[in-house]
Amino acid sequence: MNQETTPLEEHLKIIQEKHAKLPQIMVDAGVDCWIIFARETATTPDSSMKFVVGGDIVLASAFIFAIQSDGSLKKCALVANFDAAAEEKKGFWDEVIGYEKGIKSHLQAKMKELNPKKIGLNFSLDDFSADGLSHGMFLLLNQLIPRYKNNFTSAQKIVNTIRSNKSKTEIALIRKACDITEEINHLITKQLKIGQNEFEIQQMFHAEVQKRGLGFSWQQIGNPAVDISPKEFGHVLPQTSNVISEGSTLHNDFGILFHGYASDLQRMWFFGKKEEVPNELHHALETIINGIQLAADNIKPGIPGYKIDKIVRDYQLSRGYKEYLHGLGHQVGIMAHDGGGMLGPIWERYGDLPKKLIEVGQIFTLEPSIRTEHHGSVSLEEMVVVTERGCEFLVSPAKDFIYIN
Amino acid sequence: MNQETTPLEEHLKIIQEKHAKLPQIMVDAGVDCWIIFARETATTPDSSMKFVVGGDIVLASAFIFAIQSDGSLKKCALVANFDAAAEEKKGFWDEVIGYEKGIKSHLQAKMKELNPKKIGLNFSLDDFSADGLSHGMFLLLNQLIPRYKNNFTSAQKIVNTIRSNKSKTEIALIRKACDITEEINHLITKQLKIGQNEFEIQQMFHAEVQKRGLGFSWQQIGNPAVDISPKEFGHVLPQTSNVISEGSTLHNDFGILFHGYASDLQRMWFFGKKEEVPNELHHALETIINGIQLAADNIKPGIPGYKIDKIVRDYQLSRGYKEYLHGLGHQVGIMAHDGGGMLGPIWERYGDLPKKLIEVGQIFTLEPSIRTEHHGSVSLEEMVVVTERGCEFLVSPAKDFIYIN
Repeated sequence: MNQETTPLEEHLKIIQEKHAKLPQIMVDAGVDCWIIFARETATTPDSSMKFVVGGDIVLASAFIFAIQSDGSLKKCALVANFDAAAEEKKGFWDEVIGYEKGIKSHLQAKMKELNPKKIGLNFSLDDFSADGLSHGMFLLLNQLIPRYKNNFTSAQKIVNTIRSNKSKTEIALIRKACDITEEINHLITKQLKIGQNEFEIQQMFHAEVQKRGLGFSWQQIGNPAVDISPKEFGHVLPQTSNVISEGSTLHNDFGILFHGYASDLQRMWFFGKKEEVPNELHHALETIINGIQLAADNIKPGIPGYKIDKIVRDYQLSRGYKEYLHGLGHQVGIMAHDGGGMLGPIWERYGDLPKKLIEVGQIFTLEPSIRTEHHGSVSLEEMVVVTERGCEFLVSPAKDFIYIN
Repeated sequence: MNQETTPLEEHLKIIQEKHAKLPQIMVDAGVDCWIIFARETATTPDSSMKFVVGGDIVLASAFIFAIQSDGSLKKCALVANFDAAAEEKKGFWDEVIGYEKGIKSHLQAKMKELNPKKIGLNFSLDDFSADGLSHGMFLLLNQLIPRYKNNFTSAQKIVNTIRSNKSKTEIALIRKACDITEEINHLITKQLKIGQNEFEIQQMFHAEVQKRGLGFSWQQIGNPAVDISPKEFGHVLPQTSNVISEGSTLHNDFGILFHGYASDLQRMWFFGKKEEVPNELHHALETIINGIQLAADNIKPGIPGYKIDKIVRDYQLSRGYKEYLHGLGHQVGIMAHDGGGMLGPIWERYGDLPKKLIEVGQIFTLEPSIRTEHHGSVSLEEMVVVTERGCEFLVSPAKDFIYIN
């Protein structure tokens, strides 16, 4: 049975939860009209559609959300004739227009009627998840409604909030995805033994995911990442030549999709007894576990993400380690890397994302890492949901290696 | 076993076939440098990467192909540190640079070294498949290398040719996908009977696809489309309330993915004997079959797509039917709707695509449709590959209904 995608009824429920929040989000973003302009979304998806539209369209389509003078939200779908019936059926559009030969005249008429001042479009320099509009489609929109090109602005705030601030239904699904991930980790733990290689261990995880009809929250080829006594972590695929022996560590980075929502957790195993763990390795793992707890203790709404990253980064430095060359954590939602504000350092490659304030309903990973001198790299990854007062772990955080002996 | 995605070795072979053609394609397009600039490609893919890069990357990455003064092609990958090892391993880059905190200085240095005149970027107003660059990434590139912003141009010609003109390996895979599609159609034919509904018939197809580990060449929820005596075709999902009875027609539109390559075929069944087919239905089907053959007889390299569409459209008009409200055919490749030049009318919604010239190695669908007055809609869909002299069907075209009695 397919457990990978969101069942239709659940999906429509999530969309309705999101639509209910949209007028306030648009007002907060200072935008009175939001246009999602997309085509062939099976190939070139605008991921924001999952939250407020649902499904896929083929030819150029405009989904228009406009705040009217009385404060109410008007919702219109302009799609090609053969996509119109599917939109009608969803039941949440105020108007569905199915065009035959071209969208231009319909779009012009609709814009004239709505007469918006600030039109949010899905582009962003920093955040891929708010950057669903292609450059060609941006140019096309300028050609279709040239009168409005000075009214265009980035809809990043709307897209980020709609996606990041999880609804009740979404939090429940992500929690369930985490539970299943841990369930599979526990199951595989019983099958692990000396002599196995990275590739065959990955295959064991794949078999469990497939048996349950789940999806992968990133590409299956690197999910889970499986590393035996890794020198460093990277996006290198599992190798048959890396084999477990006495005293090895095993690290995985594993995420599944349950009903369209993702998990992303890292766990570590040690092949031997607890008292056989080298001091250096023990100290590194303790640093990781404490760092994660420190982050969880400090997260609350209103703090910029980089401050949380810095607390953990400084703590690791104080314990004698180098900085990790990545962010402390990212948001998780319909995929492992869900975009939006992050817990990361202010480095060029992260743009403005680490400066964004933490908000209620966001779900973050916490995943510091350490490269030890003699015993390879160490990392764990947990997931937390932000609450009014702080945050909660979605599953119990790891407090040690899992011992195989 | 997973038969959905291209096995790594086959994928690298296809990429090498494409790289070999790239210098000439770039010269023909009048571009001396092609940059694919992308991030988080698991979510926001630039589909051209499948043909010349392979795999996914997380942070902003630049894949640069530059014709040097001696005519040779220089190929560089600028990726984040943790993506560098995977690129190195592919073995086809002249240079892989893994950046730590930001791409800017590396990209500026590389551009200075290459000093290109015309820089092709992946944007297009008409063609989604050549429009992989997001608007945010376009703005970012302007910020990173402002000196070159007047050198930017659309890489549509390169992207279209690389993708459309199938290599030997690709044609063999698509032919195999078509064979499997027909194999499943034949198998299901034996199980069809009066009383079944659209939804359960779709489930029968899904079971076969899953049993074989294949993928779907468009969303599973509408693949195959299954229509029992349909009034009109559209993207409406299979209904349990539509049930086969004596004299019904059944239509499907079915496409699978085999090793990452797609099929897209339509077939029709009639529940009754050949001699029981109403005249109106017979005449419509004959018109469809003749129309497809007429298209196949006229396709050859160098003709614009709209001319082929017009031949079939005019033929249908001459037989007393209205125009079909869609194009005659689209290209098929890594997905059912593969983009690039099409066989369609010159309507606003198709942009310039119908004017593009047909080229050797392109694979098109031929799928006219007719709405009859009393017996519902009729359509078939075939696939042809363009050769030096004309075209060839990838599987034997349907010449009649499939009769169930």
